[in-house]
Amino acid sequence: MELKTHWNGSGASSVLVGSVMIGAGGYTVIAGPCAVESETQIMASAEFVAEGGGAILRGGAFKGRTSPYEFQGLGEEGLRYLRRAGDANGLPVLSDVTEPGDVGLVSEFVDMLQIGARSMQDFALLRAVGQTEKPVLLKRGPAATIEEWLLAAEYILNEGNSQVVLGEQGIRTFDSTTSSTLDIGSVPSVKRLSHLPVIIDPSHASGASEIVLPLALAGRAAGADGLMVEVHPSPDEALTDGPHQLDKDEYLALMHALGIVRLRADIDVIDREIVRLLARRVKGAVDIARIKVEEGIPLRSLDREEDLLADVREEAELLGLDANVVHELFVEIIRYSRVEQAQALDRPPESE
Amino acid sequence: MELKTHWNGSGASSVLVGSVMIGAGGYTVIAGPCAVESETQIMASAEFVAEGGGAILRGGAFKGRTSPYEFQGLGEEGLRYLRRAGDANGLPVLSDVTEPGDVGLVSEFVDMLQIGARSMQDFALLRAVGQTEKPVLLKRGPAATIEEWLLAAEYILNEGNSQVVLGEQGIRTFDSTTSSTLDIGSVPSVKRLSHLPVIIDPSHASGASEIVLPLALAGRAAGADGLMVEVHPSPDEALTDGPHQLDKDEYLALMHALGIVRLRADIDVIDREIVRLLARRVKGAVDIARIKVEEGIPLRSLDREEDLLADVREEAELLGLDANVVHELFVEIIRYSRVEQAQALDRPPESE
Amino acid sequence: MELKTHWNGSGASSVLVGSVMIGAGGYTVIAGPCAVESETQIMASAEFVAEGGGAILRGGAFKGRTSPYEFQGLGEEGLRYLRRAGDANGLPVLSDVTEPGDVGLVSEFVDMLQIGARSMQDFALLRAVGQTEKPVLLKRGPAATIEEWLLAAEYILNEGNSQVVLGEQGIRTFDSTTSSTLDIGSVPSVKRLSHLPVIIDPSHASGASEIVLPLALAGRAAGADGLMVEVHPSPDEALTDGPHQLDKDEYLALMHALGIVRLRADIDVIDREIVRLLARRVKGAVDIARIKVEEGIPLRSLDREEDLLADVREEAELLGLDANVVHELFVEIIRYSRVEQAQALDRPPESE
Amino acid sequence: MELKTHWNGSGASSVLVGSVMIGAGGYTVIAGPCAVESETQIMASAEFVAEGGGAILRGGAFKGRTSPYEFQGLGEEGLRYLRRAGDANGLPVLSDVTEPGDVGLVSEFVDMLQIGARSMQDFALLRAVGQTEKPVLLKRGPAATIEEWLLAAEYILNEGNSQVVLGEQGIRTFDSTTSSTLDIGSVPSVKRLSHLPVIIDPSHASGASEIVLPLALAGRAAGADGLMVEVHPSPDEALTDGPHQLDKDEYLALMHALGIVRLRADIDVIDREIVRLLARRVKGAVDIARIKVEEGIPLRSLDREEDLLADVREEAELLGLDANVVHELFVEIIRYSRVEQAQALDRPPESE
Repeated sequence: MELKTHWNGSGASSVLVGSVMIGAGGYTVIAGPCAVESETQIMASAEFVAEGGGAILRGGAFKGRTSPYEFQGLGEEGLRYLRRAGDANGLPVLSDVTEPGDVGLVSEFVDMLQIGARSMQDFALLRAVGQTEKPVLLKRGPAATIEEWLLAAEYILNEGNSQVVLGEQGIRTFDSTTSSTLDIGSVPSVKRLSHLPVIIDPSHASGASEIVLPLALAGRAAGADGLMVEVHPSPDEALTDGPHQLDKDEYLALMHALGIVRLRADIDVIDREIVRLLARRVKGAVDIARIKVEEGIPLRSLDREEDLLADVREEAELLGLDANVVHELFVEIIRYSRVEQAQALDRPPESE
Repeated sequence: MELKTHWNGSGASSVLVGSVMIGAGGYTVIAGPCAVESETQIMASAEFVAEGGGAILRGGAFKGRTSPYEFQGLGEEGLRYLRRAGDANGLPVLSDVTEPGDVGLVSEFVDMLQIGARSMQDFALLRAVGQTEKPVLLKRGPAATIEEWLLAAEYILNEGNSQVVLGEQGIRTFDSTTSSTLDIGSVPSVKRLSHLPVIIDPSHASGASEIVLPLALAGRAAGADGLMVEVHPSPDEALTDGPHQLDKDEYLALMHALGIVRLRADIDVIDREIVRLLARRVKGAVDIARIKVEEGIPLRSLDREEDLLADVREEAELLGLDANVVHELFVEIIRYSRVEQAQALDRPPESE
Repeated sequence: MELKTHWNGSGASSVLVGSVMIGAGGYTVIAGPCAVESETQIMASAEFVAEGGGAILRGGAFKGRTSPYEFQGLGEEGLRYLRRAGDANGLPVLSDVTEPGDVGLVSEFVDMLQIGARSMQDFALLRAVGQTEKPVLLKRGPAATIEEWLLAAEYILNEGNSQVVLGEQGIRTFDSTTSSTLDIGSVPSVKRLSHLPVIIDPSHASGASEIVLPLALAGRAAGADGLMVEVHPSPDEALTDGPHQLDKDEYLALMHALGIVRLRADIDVIDREIVRLLARRVKGAVDIARIKVEEGIPLRSLDREEDLLADVREEAELLGLDANVVHELFVEIIRYSRVEQAQALDRPPESE
Repeated sequence: MELKTHWNGSGASSVLVGSVMIGAGGYTVIAGPCAVESETQIMASAEFVAEGGGAILRGGAFKGRTSPYEFQGLGEEGLRYLRRAGDANGLPVLSDVTEPGDVGLVSEFVDMLQIGARSMQDFALLRAVGQTEKPVLLKRGPAATIEEWLLAAEYILNEGNSQVVLGEQGIRTFDSTTSSTLDIGSVPSVKRLSHLPVIIDPSHASGASEIVLPLALAGRAAGADGLMVEVHPSPDEALTDGPHQLDKDEYLALMHALGIVRLRADIDVIDREIVRLLARRVKGAVDIARIKVEEGIPLRSLDREEDLLADVREEAELLGLDANVVHELFVEIIRYSRVEQAQALDRPPESE
């Protein structure tokens, strides 16, 4: 039998949440506090989420908690605050739904429904969200195989809703150094089996804010379509999961490390990156020059330079740049490389 | 009690294998077949390992195998072939040592000793390699906590040998989609606790060659100091672990994805990358321009340009480039950005 | 904070299901098919469950299944059949409830509600059953720690329902020889921490009918208060979980091995057991006699015999037997033991 | 390929350690301290091990420890003390061997070699003990599947030594309530696959002395051929693994619960058990009588009594008892049952 979640040759799916696309080659950041605790708290969170480049705002209103004596969320009031905070900052919003009976209520307020890890095999809930038109983020259960996770998604697709994103947040293993073990291999494994987008949640996997950043980078490198990260204006005062929530500065540092930054800063960063690449280029050219001298090969190869410049023009055109301008820049760069080669070899630059 | 493996404030350690440094900000690739099977096979492997930019050659001569009826390695003969293949291709070599009694023999032939996952708590073996001056790659056992792994390393350091690199190759969990679960979180966790370098081995963690590349990229993104990857000229004919060994093309694709390529190719890649960054820069500048127009802010800010150029000079100097040359390049780049802004906004460029 | 599920010094709890007590030193067997498939099937099951000494009839009507394309249970119709089968055979009945919205419906039909492993942390469901007066069997989730399991029970007790029995059915581990790993240590661990009764479910833990019997015996030996076992008139034709369901003969063999048999058979078994103990007694007496002869000690000790008979009288009175009758029986038994000793030593019995 | 460890139709194997048989239907207890710490300590241990009915004395001399800074065992001196303590108490002895180079030395002193869990896949060690004629206890590694465990045993059998006993001491899982999770299902699983005897080690699996007894009973109920249990004269002062070692009283209580007691005590226990069975028999007879009265069936059935007595004679002969004596005893028992029936029903006993 062919499963609706399985790869079928017609390409990877993408899921539209408000105006935000998940999948299709992009990289989407969902951020927000574990739980909506007050209007002030979610509003403050939403502001810095948007400022840092986050695309979707999360916030739990119905919280499943291990003990009955812990904070259980603000319910409908929390959803109302979340919606307002999202609207005020131009962000679509996501919140957990834990019971089939709540699907209608939560759907009124959010742009994307989350099914948490503990509910991954609540089949009535899967069917209920499958009957809505809301996108769904389906977290992997802590003891679920990848096959079981995809079959849980199958329940949703089988009801007619194909807007499903998978979320890896770690599995239970013997090692308690991190709160659960992020199964980074699940990202490429899911990509081989299924057309659905997959994101990672390093917050729940890590249990410590210092580990969130490297896990987030690893997830993107492994091919994830995005990231869910928990942030809080004052993690120390959080009513739930304080230890792994990032504060504003940690969040901005994460977004910077991911290369997701506001426009102005972006140009600074790009310029610095260009300079770094120039340095690597010059070093490479000098290394080649040394080898050529040892082997008695002429330093300069006009054919090679022409090829290089042709490649560069082609690349520029592909990317919509003015090929002549870029050509001139690289003539200059090549000239400069030759100067550095000559200095390193202690001889005059070859004439043009 | 202060452990010798623990972080002590005096910085991260690096380990020198032949002329190759592991740690200290670099990224080192160890590659080679699971087992040395013949002189031809290891020689062919070594050639393409070197060609692709691998820094150290691996090859097992004493193979611990689950069943007594499987190929157990060529022993001393295998070590001899490995050494020759390394020497012929300018690569230091690494091989497993599984018994204290073999440490002397294996040390004669190799530059780095590997203690495999099954031997992680063979304490006599740990002491024996601790009494040599060879660098040691200590793999994590499939059921070992991070604490136990560091204490195993402590046995080696306690004998006087501090040249230890840790190797993560996955832990045993309930999910058999991949052959073991790469604990990507162990990389930042080890970095927090210890000064020792840590590399990952995606080959043993994946069990399938298609999963090796994304895991390798994830490991580097998470902060690993390097990679061990198994390669084979003809994985289908391998006597051991065929399914996860990469062939030459897969290996070269991996090295390319990691940005590790031969010098000539490197410059091509760098140039292409510079062009891509130029395109991102131009797009960013255009986006800013649109916002400025909407908000009635003048397009050009001379102060901002001066700041940018000052930053660029500073970066160039830091990296040992000629600051004037780089300055001129960026004057040109900024000018070009203005031209593109003007075209996008359908107005003449502001005069200089 | 003192938890309601925790041991508090006022003794172990027992839970009354219809007229059947779970806990309080007894050993209760819950048996029946995984799913109610038809009236015929559940009726046939109930008959042999009762015949073999089972105390409670189980049968699933709302089945949570890994795939949406598998049999999902008969729903209310199944509950109706289950009730009839229980009533016809004098057995209280148990069935799963998977959603808060179903608690009312299922409660109309059953004497005990089961919360399956996948629903262990469905907190709304826990609260909903906590608001009924029905006894609840709470299965442990496959990745739940014992602490989390007790906290899930706490949700039920906290709503006012203290009629909770815990059910261990195995946890997820790396070894797939059995379908999950029965955590036999959870039985004494729960007994140390909590006053709640605990039973084991070897059917789900084993995945194979041959493993059910040894696990059942192990559970009782470890101190479990009972057993849930899945049985089916024709396991090969079962719509769900066929491989681990016992057929009638396997079930009767299990009940026999547990020493749970119908009255008539019981007396046969008891008599045979008495004979076996007589044989062990005689062998022990002969062994002692040999030692005494070697060491030159007189064979018969009148003091020892008097002590023995006094102990026996005391035990008889404790158990409500006629002490004189039992005394006479043992006088006879001791006399016989002396005869056997003498024969074994090849000498005449010592005179009385 | 047919494996030497696999079930081959020629029955279960038994292993002879000194004069003690493991397997073949018996139940063998191996007991002693984790480590030999001094001559006094091992001698005191051996005395109460023997007193309680233990069959083999254990004591570690070469201890593999997680940290290099922990007590590593007394080595050869420890072996000498162990041998003396065993000889003085009539017990064969067992100790760990951790390195191939130590096999000769340890074999000089012990009757059985143990390969610990960490060394289960030290293949050179497996081969080395396979070349001796010593029985071997092979512990299961904490992350080893049953298949891998049997393949490790295969290494030993393949060298010519078939005297192998398997030892289950728990696997690593996510739950840290017990120090590892005793995989009780491994006992029947191994019995299905292999002819080798299997014992369990509840000490290492439990991590706490209170859990040892229920796990030991569970192991026997599941079909294990024996038990290894760690005991120490003063667990609080033990140099290793204090928390799970039993003191003398705990050990004697365990042996009592297992029904392994010295001969004298044995007869007391058997007599008490006979009395208990009489009470159950009488209660059963009374229950039947009540049913008969309700249903108008005559109380006494001479045919039934004759069948019963015939069965009892047969059983007695099978067990080597004098059938006439046993017959007479049961005539008496039946008569007494009738008396109790009559009293319970408040009517005169039926005449003979």
